[in-house]
Amino acid sequence: MFFASDNAGPAHPQVMERVIAANTGHQLPYGNDDMMDEVRAGIRRVFDAPEAEVFLVSTGTAANALALACYTQPWQTIYCSSVAHVEEDECNAPEFYAGAVKLTCVRTDDKMTPEALEAAITAHPAGDVHVAQPGPVTITQVTERGSVHSLAELQALTSVAKSHNLPVHLDGARFANAQAALGCTAAEMSWKSGVDVVSFGGTKNGCMAVEAVVFFDPSKAWEFQLRRKRGAHLFSKHRYLSAQMAGYLQDDLFLRTARQANDNAAYLVQGLTKAGAEFLHTPDANMIFTRFPRSVHQRLHDAGAQYNLWGDVLDGAAEDMVACRLVCDWSITRDQIDTFLAHF
Amino acid sequence: MFFASDNAGPAHPQVMERVIAANTGHQLPYGNDDMMDEVRAGIRRVFDAPEAEVFLVSTGTAANALALACYTQPWQTIYCSSVAHVEEDECNAPEFYAGAVKLTCVRTDDKMTPEALEAAITAHPAGDVHVAQPGPVTITQVTERGSVHSLAELQALTSVAKSHNLPVHLDGARFANAQAALGCTAAEMSWKSGVDVVSFGGTKNGCMAVEAVVFFDPSKAWEFQLRRKRGAHLFSKHRYLSAQMAGYLQDDLFLRTARQANDNAAYLVQGLTKAGAEFLHTPDANMIFTRFPRSVHQRLHDAGAQYNLWGDVLDGAAEDMVACRLVCDWSITRDQIDTFLAHF
Amino acid sequence: MFFASDNAGPAHPQVMERVIAANTGHQLPYGNDDMMDEVRAGIRRVFDAPEAEVFLVSTGTAANALALACYTQPWQTIYCSSVAHVEEDECNAPEFYAGAVKLTCVRTDDKMTPEALEAAITAHPAGDVHVAQPGPVTITQVTERGSVHSLAELQALTSVAKSHNLPVHLDGARFANAQAALGCTAAEMSWKSGVDVVSFGGTKNGCMAVEAVVFFDPSKAWEFQLRRKRGAHLFSKHRYLSAQMAGYLQDDLFLRTARQANDNAAYLVQGLTKAGAEFLHTPDANMIFTRFPRSVHQRLHDAGAQYNLWGDVLDGAAEDMVACRLVCDWSITRDQIDTFLAHF
Amino acid sequence: MFFASDNAGPAHPQVMERVIAANTGHQLPYGNDDMMDEVRAGIRRVFDAPEAEVFLVSTGTAANALALACYTQPWQTIYCSSVAHVEEDECNAPEFYAGAVKLTCVRTDDKMTPEALEAAITAHPAGDVHVAQPGPVTITQVTERGSVHSLAELQALTSVAKSHNLPVHLDGARFANAQAALGCTAAEMSWKSGVDVVSFGGTKNGCMAVEAVVFFDPSKAWEFQLRRKRGAHLFSKHRYLSAQMAGYLQDDLFLRTARQANDNAAYLVQGLTKAGAEFLHTPDANMIFTRFPRSVHQRLHDAGAQYNLWGDVLDGAAEDMVACRLVCDWSITRDQIDTFLAHF
Repeated sequence: MFFASDNAGPAHPQVMERVIAANTGHQLPYGNDDMMDEVRAGIRRVFDAPEAEVFLVSTGTAANALALACYTQPWQTIYCSSVAHVEEDECNAPEFYAGAVKLTCVRTDDKMTPEALEAAITAHPAGDVHVAQPGPVTITQVTERGSVHSLAELQALTSVAKSHNLPVHLDGARFANAQAALGCTAAEMSWKSGVDVVSFGGTKNGCMAVEAVVFFDPSKAWEFQLRRKRGAHLFSKHRYLSAQMAGYLQDDLFLRTARQANDNAAYLVQGLTKAGAEFLHTPDANMIFTRFPRSVHQRLHDAGAQYNLWGDVLDGAAEDMVACRLVCDWSITRDQIDTFLAHF
Repeated sequence: MFFASDNAGPAHPQVMERVIAANTGHQLPYGNDDMMDEVRAGIRRVFDAPEAEVFLVSTGTAANALALACYTQPWQTIYCSSVAHVEEDECNAPEFYAGAVKLTCVRTDDKMTPEALEAAITAHPAGDVHVAQPGPVTITQVTERGSVHSLAELQALTSVAKSHNLPVHLDGARFANAQAALGCTAAEMSWKSGVDVVSFGGTKNGCMAVEAVVFFDPSKAWEFQLRRKRGAHLFSKHRYLSAQMAGYLQDDLFLRTARQANDNAAYLVQGLTKAGAEFLHTPDANMIFTRFPRSVHQRLHDAGAQYNLWGDVLDGAAEDMVACRLVCDWSITRDQIDTFLAHF
Repeated sequence: MFFASDNAGPAHPQVMERVIAANTGHQLPYGNDDMMDEVRAGIRRVFDAPEAEVFLVSTGTAANALALACYTQPWQTIYCSSVAHVEEDECNAPEFYAGAVKLTCVRTDDKMTPEALEAAITAHPAGDVHVAQPGPVTITQVTERGSVHSLAELQALTSVAKSHNLPVHLDGARFANAQAALGCTAAEMSWKSGVDVVSFGGTKNGCMAVEAVVFFDPSKAWEFQLRRKRGAHLFSKHRYLSAQMAGYLQDDLFLRTARQANDNAAYLVQGLTKAGAEFLHTPDANMIFTRFPRSVHQRLHDAGAQYNLWGDVLDGAAEDMVACRLVCDWSITRDQIDTFLAHF
Repeated sequence: MFFASDNAGPAHPQVMERVIAANTGHQLPYGNDDMMDEVRAGIRRVFDAPEAEVFLVSTGTAANALALACYTQPWQTIYCSSVAHVEEDECNAPEFYAGAVKLTCVRTDDKMTPEALEAAITAHPAGDVHVAQPGPVTITQVTERGSVHSLAELQALTSVAKSHNLPVHLDGARFANAQAALGCTAAEMSWKSGVDVVSFGGTKNGCMAVEAVVFFDPSKAWEFQLRRKRGAHLFSKHRYLSAQMAGYLQDDLFLRTARQANDNAAYLVQGLTKAGAEFLHTPDANMIFTRFPRSVHQRLHDAGAQYNLWGDVLDGAAEDMVACRLVCDWSITRDQIDTFLAHF
């Protein structure tokens, strides 16, 4: 009963098989392996973007920090939600990679609103040398609170950015889960909605450790490669990154594992609802923020269930309710969920 | 006939088997997986260093840059040989990670001499606020030119560093090859010779992508972990790094693959010697810098042999000799070497 | 009628006389001039801190950024108020100098409260490698909104910092104005209240361009000097910085000019109050945030009065009131103030 | 008898008079003072460059580091001579400002040769992601060894840079001394010789603390201003920088003080030559590297003469000769030189 994160499950067999198959003979290093061609073609197909430039790194933080660095000058600020992974979970990596920049948090408990983003951008007069200058906007899709921006919501945010000539990055650590939730195309959820660069996650959704950075503006390609090497993220035996991503793209595995994770979460939400649990955010994809009795929590804990308690409720020792985050990955079984729910 | 690098061969079956075996169920992320305990114990055993702190990253450049950053202040300089990987092949990664520091190159065509290192350190009066202050010394073992420092040579260099109270880093991307060449223990080639921190390479010697950073001073552990996360090098599904390193340490596989690579190189050296090739550096381990007739090169090239031409000779179009680097990894077969030599 | 800032007036004659007197013969460069001894002794006397280390730089941003850098690791965050000069007016200088750190804004429209500071520090579990680690707390005194922390308020904030073992920096660009307002000693407003390092401003209060950084912990001295040089802030002809600060300290000129500026502001506040203006913040020292009729603003503007409009009111074109900031420096005359008030 | 440096003398009366005259009333801060217009016009006139953008900072290291940062990407290397001030005397400031870049030293004991520069640039194949990419070339004029590049020598170096599309920075801390020595125009010694940006020194040649950065490509203006503020080098009471530079440019004072300093040095060289001293470098401007008997040194030292011993000779305690650097600024008198020479 592991619901602590989607970064703790195994790789999907189809991914692992490609890795095993790749483990033979010599291959050119540093991204010049044969499989990288397959990956590039696969991403371009998935995103309907024949000119897109595609690069692989091994962590989501690297994907975000390197992608943002290509769009940020050292005297600029990056706009993000105040609960963004780049702000809360990357230990200054975006600041480090982009050259000591500022992150301006748009205050929210989940999604940014266009109004709040606009207010953050216009808080300082443009061209005032004393303040950090406006830089890129980064949006997380699926958000860190488990909700999914609709295409209209996404476009409303990118429109604000574009009206100030600011580039847009999409932190898609759970891109596939969002795409599956919306039932749209990858193109619709990215460049057709005004996104310039995407961190396309693999690790949380069936890979071992691989993320693609997808640039719709190919002019950034060389800079990214230099920044990746300088950041020590260029793999010599790159074939093992390529193999994972090739397996992940093959027959749209990424959408199948994402749907499975989302379905698992929906099934769990259904059970929790029946059991009377409350929800702190709308569980649009594979993450659930919920509140239930402390006595249930105690039983689950005793039975070995793993998940994270959340926020202030931790402090309320006297409280009889706990808040927690439950994450389903593709590999959770219905049996595990049923066992979990049986403790309610 | 792939002699271009030891970063282009496959992972050893024993490593891959551990990765496959690790691919089941959920494991705690970020280095809290079960196998990391095995890795830590294994490294401590190999290095006879029960207090050592051990961390895994996926690239050699990350290992070097992060290890050095823990020992360098932003106003200091790192001493390295002028042919060091940190200087020549890491695209400013050490400078970046250590906070915009300088690398002071001790001029050499291979190993640093203690005299040259001493001269570099004392070139500026200590405590002069105008110059970069002395920082760590980094030594590559096996060197970038394929030679191996004897223990005495190593100690002579670390003695210079210690006499100035400077810490010592060992870039051991090919640590095992050097250890096999010297027939010494890992402890003798590291802390017993005055080394404070080692980049212990796995990738080039039978792994997919894993390097261990080994601190003999455990007080650096927390700083390293923060720097690793900030550098975006902390794997969530860390088990796949642990599994590789566990397989690599198991039954001293690292020494067996290193010996195999060294033996392959020795066999190739023998053949080249017979064929009258000259050597630019002493081929102590698994890298060979050699010079042979251009006509031979042409035949090898036509037959599909892969290796890198080296240095100035590239320009000498009219020259009838070429210089090149030949690297043997553990997976090269005698047949391949024989085929290669048959073109002489 | 110049009320736009206290960074636009002339230097006090006593300061200028020392500069002129210093302009003879040769003096050792880089802070080894004779007058620096006088400055050091003067600061130690003023702060009743015989061990304090004192260094001069030419801008307030340099003082802040360099002082904070000595207390911040690259993976940490600095706590400041959301209206702090370091956050709003230094174009990423603190982030740059401290090595790509984060600034965590404690939300307020003026002073931080101890509760809000505590909440900001404890928002993340200590020792979580994913988040920026707690670093120094910086407090501005006089605040950017013209109010002054009482000693009790100051101590309440530093107590929070100390309870988490965090160092405290005081941005004293207007230190003297605050000291004059409180009628306390410099020691009471700094180390006796738990402050570790002070930016002691000279520029805004009668100098040309000089700020002292005062460390009550002398162990930071060498690091500061290296950071100052690396930041290109070490003056060769340092005597001209020393001379300014020597003149500023002589016979406590800094307190006299500060009192004069505060008195000017009090006189202006009195006039504005009579004229029915409202105040947005308590004008404790020499800055006034006030609101008055647009028609008055128009008359003042036509008469050549200079001051800054403030905040949202700018947008309210239809509004019949304007908000503005009025700053008095020591050199404003009563006549100028009377002329200003005459337009109400 | 102060020959230790030209950074230790007083400001010229004409400079000081402008500073004193500027010390009245209120002036807009941050470079918007009236005198900055005079400075801008003056520099454009001197350099015959009506489009040039001009900015003032207070130290030579700031001028160099900020100017270079505008032309360097974080993954690039700056080419300089191995005795360059940026390499030897700025405590990692250029690395810091340009974003953790490398400095590649072209080995020389004084001027770079075009051949050595070419070799340094072409040492690595262009477009190899593993190595620092070629960045700007910086040339010091007067060199750190007191010699002056002829216009032909300068052009030979910039031609190499231009053939690789690399920008050229001139470290002109002693620009005026070089111009006086060559008897050419400022334009000939800068943009007409292929220089893109100049650090035009004032401090060493009669000012208190001011350097102009002159961009012949005005497109860099905004970036420079942001970098200057971010580096904490934007003066609020900027008028005091403007006043110095205005006085320095007025009636070409800079050339007059430079000629005086050069003449002083020539007079001293003449005396030293008569006395049989040897010269380590050609004393083209106002710096002299010379060797004379230790007994003379002892007498000079006892008489209070100040100058720096130089290099290896320091170690040769048994040697009967010493090497030293003698610098003349504009304010040295013939009497002082005669007194100095009398000890030979």
